[in-house]
Amino acid sequence: MFYDLKLNDTKPVYLQIKDYIKSMILSGMLQKDIKLPSTRELSSILNVSRNTVIEAYKYLEDEGFVYTVRGRGFYVSNVEINRQDEWNFNWSSEFNSYAKLSEELDIVKSEPVWKRGMISFKSIAPDNSYFDVEEVKKAFLNRMALEGDKLLNYGYAKGYKPLIEYLMKYMEGKGVAKEGKDILITNGFTEAFDILLSSLTNSGDKIICENPTHNTAIKIMKLHGLNIEGVELDDDGINLEKLKNKITKDTKLAYLIPSYHNPTGIIMPPEKRIEVFNIFKEYNVPIIEDGFNEELRYSGSHVAPIAALCGKGNGVIYIGSFSKVLFPGLRIGWIMADKDLISVLESVKRSRNIHTSFIDQAILFEYLNGGNFEKYIKRVRKIYKEKYECAVKCAKKYIPNKKILGEGGLHIFLELSDEIDTRDVLSECMKKGVIFMPGDIFYTDGRGKNTLRLGFSRNSIEDIEKGFKIIGNVVKNMNMEVTK
Amino acid sequence: MFYDLKLNDTKPVYLQIKDYIKSMILSGMLQKDIKLPSTRELSSILNVSRNTVIEAYKYLEDEGFVYTVRGRGFYVSNVEINRQDEWNFNWSSEFNSYAKLSEELDIVKSEPVWKRGMISFKSIAPDNSYFDVEEVKKAFLNRMALEGDKLLNYGYAKGYKPLIEYLMKYMEGKGVAKEGKDILITNGFTEAFDILLSSLTNSGDKIICENPTHNTAIKIMKLHGLNIEGVELDDDGINLEKLKNKITKDTKLAYLIPSYHNPTGIIMPPEKRIEVFNIFKEYNVPIIEDGFNEELRYSGSHVAPIAALCGKGNGVIYIGSFSKVLFPGLRIGWIMADKDLISVLESVKRSRNIHTSFIDQAILFEYLNGGNFEKYIKRVRKIYKEKYECAVKCAKKYIPNKKILGEGGLHIFLELSDEIDTRDVLSECMKKGVIFMPGDIFYTDGRGKNTLRLGFSRNSIEDIEKGFKIIGNVVKNMNMEVTK
Repeated sequence: MFYDLKLNDTKPVYLQIKDYIKSMILSGMLQKDIKLPSTRELSSILNVSRNTVIEAYKYLEDEGFVYTVRGRGFYVSNVEINRQDEWNFNWSSEFNSYAKLSEELDIVKSEPVWKRGMISFKSIAPDNSYFDVEEVKKAFLNRMALEGDKLLNYGYAKGYKPLIEYLMKYMEGKGVAKEGKDILITNGFTEAFDILLSSLTNSGDKIICENPTHNTAIKIMKLHGLNIEGVELDDDGINLEKLKNKITKDTKLAYLIPSYHNPTGIIMPPEKRIEVFNIFKEYNVPIIEDGFNEELRYSGSHVAPIAALCGKGNGVIYIGSFSKVLFPGLRIGWIMADKDLISVLESVKRSRNIHTSFIDQAILFEYLNGGNFEKYIKRVRKIYKEKYECAVKCAKKYIPNKKILGEGGLHIFLELSDEIDTRDVLSECMKKGVIFMPGDIFYTDGRGKNTLRLGFSRNSIEDIEKGFKIIGNVVKNMNMEVTK
Repeated sequence: MFYDLKLNDTKPVYLQIKDYIKSMILSGMLQKDIKLPSTRELSSILNVSRNTVIEAYKYLEDEGFVYTVRGRGFYVSNVEINRQDEWNFNWSSEFNSYAKLSEELDIVKSEPVWKRGMISFKSIAPDNSYFDVEEVKKAFLNRMALEGDKLLNYGYAKGYKPLIEYLMKYMEGKGVAKEGKDILITNGFTEAFDILLSSLTNSGDKIICENPTHNTAIKIMKLHGLNIEGVELDDDGINLEKLKNKITKDTKLAYLIPSYHNPTGIIMPPEKRIEVFNIFKEYNVPIIEDGFNEELRYSGSHVAPIAALCGKGNGVIYIGSFSKVLFPGLRIGWIMADKDLISVLESVKRSRNIHTSFIDQAILFEYLNGGNFEKYIKRVRKIYKEKYECAVKCAKKYIPNKKILGEGGLHIFLELSDEIDTRDVLSECMKKGVIFMPGDIFYTDGRGKNTLRLGFSRNSIEDIEKGFKIIGNVVKNMNMEVTK
């Protein structure tokens, strides 16, 4: 049976020999107290050095699969597995309502799948090819040289201290006062929002948000059983009259995306932020502010987040993340909020997963502290701005629409004429090799059937033009059918 | 005011200038339309190159804090923050019962804190100084060279494919059949267990576990509102008669640690694993098996996990983690279970935090695939075995006890005479510079007041002897008082 072992170069040869013999033992092919071939014999059979076989045997002994008899050789240990009768448990009936809803709301399992050759406007993830991989490597090596052994051991639930301090200053640079505040590092925005709702809400609580809004946020609010009150948007953000009509003293929380609102791309202007802030303050309903892609401003002055208006007050919780624009693979976000609130969230974070990867946090800290983020943003802003302008131009030119929204970021949002269902547009487009995100997933109340989000971050200028033309033609054909 | 800027060497100088001016603008010290000093002027004030100042001004412009007037210089943009009246929200009354319980059960906030100079037996984390930092660096650089840009972008909720495939084979090497199974990568054991209970249980459900058991598991079970039925242990693991008395058809799940049981260190022998398996199978109560530190066997044959007895059946869920022995800072664990179950858990994982860090997963895969884990384990096993033997010897010699438990791993567990409360022992020991983990936190029913866990992984042989002597003397004094 040792002749059957085919060696390859995917991993060290001694490990391949070790694993092969292990599998022979586990399958019962090599039984208890059988003597293994001598190291000399096996090295000649496999045509490898004797040391390689010795290495393999030593590891087998180490893992308890073989034992040695002095001067006689290696023997198989007593490791047979007494497999019992098969036990087939019916898992499908065991899931609770949370798990069932998680699966039902998991659009990744239902949305159109990209196939090679397709033009996809589905994603708003950044384009890999602009990542500073070299700077990330340097950041990693610097930190590992300084404190590699510590980073590989347990860290703290609140996060990596140098990163927390960096982010405190970073938030100050946005105008947010740090007095009385603290930061918790999370695995991206998703975990930050989930931990907040897990800690502050009960099923049935009322939460106010923009309508449309970030689909992942809708999913998380639904998973917490919240009563979601979506408030319609004007071209400059949430409609204030409608907000006043919906807000009540017993509204538990609000979730807002004032900058590069997902999916519409609207930036709420400074004056409106003040009005919004004061309405929520009047009703004493805390705001969870999603600082989504705030960094991707293509023109104009700095706009301070709503959290900055609050000064030393604690009514606004800010969720930040570099994942969306910098490196989504490093799952890092943060919550900046009242320090007593953060202290409780820290305990919740610890009970969920102890802490976020310290390697990721250390890499991000070192990368940021070296000024690489500013350099990166400056560079990609130019590239994405060009794509953005192309997208707006092509949407106007090719796709019949009622409205084009989006003032920056990595996507635009289109409203088509009321008769059009963008799910039908999508089905037709898929046949022609183009996919995008139907807008209805961003609505809290099933509306938005005539809307779509077009992410352009990972497409070339040529593909944006080509893809939008295809979408436009499909829409034109549908318009014709509708008017027939 | 520019004379006040003190430069240091913690980060690039242009960033320090940029951040200083930003803070002046945000604080209102530099108002809208004020002209900044010329680059020549500021470079002379700060004694830095003119290019450095130009760089700083360019980034300020880029971030929307200043604007340029051609031929005239840089001016402050309109970025004042209209701070509103302070809004002080009372967060303390807003937490739900889950958050309150999380904080209450967070022993990190209540347990004795290590201070410099103390000998601590509290931790069972591995000793940093044995980590192969160099091999981790190599693993990182290899993966980054191959696919750095991909690793930094979004990954998949289920996990990094090469790592999943590696772990499938790894589990086969423990005798677990892969047919009909799949793997979900999680942020360590804690997240794995939390996601399982979140998906499968409802408040009030009955769960069976060993008593004592892993304190984090108790916390998570309590946070899910489960009805915890702890079953007492014999010296070879769970007592079968008591198990039969407690198990019922409506028991929802079981949680077991058959190898190096935490906190007792007991290894359940193969014959007993079969009996346990068959009892749970008879009642059709699925087992969650915690493969805790299975790799730290110091002698004897390989013992297959309970999951291996199940063959192609699906009644056992296995949670694995290298975090506990390899690198806790890389938050990586896995669930191996029925593939339809994993599919639902994948949706839950996605709704919680999208996915576990792909950098961590890629580093771990590359490190494992190169055979480094075997080498590391072989090396540290020798070191930890010596410490383990010293700990057992010193415990026998110095600490009056009823029972010493622990057959390997990184800790031993002591039962003292019934009259002793180890919390009192701890208070006395702290005064003498020694801390450990009182055993009551591992009990599901408030018992174990006369027990303690002694982790020795990070202590020298000398400190084990010294520390145990101190504990022993405190216990002896208490015994004397008791018998007075």
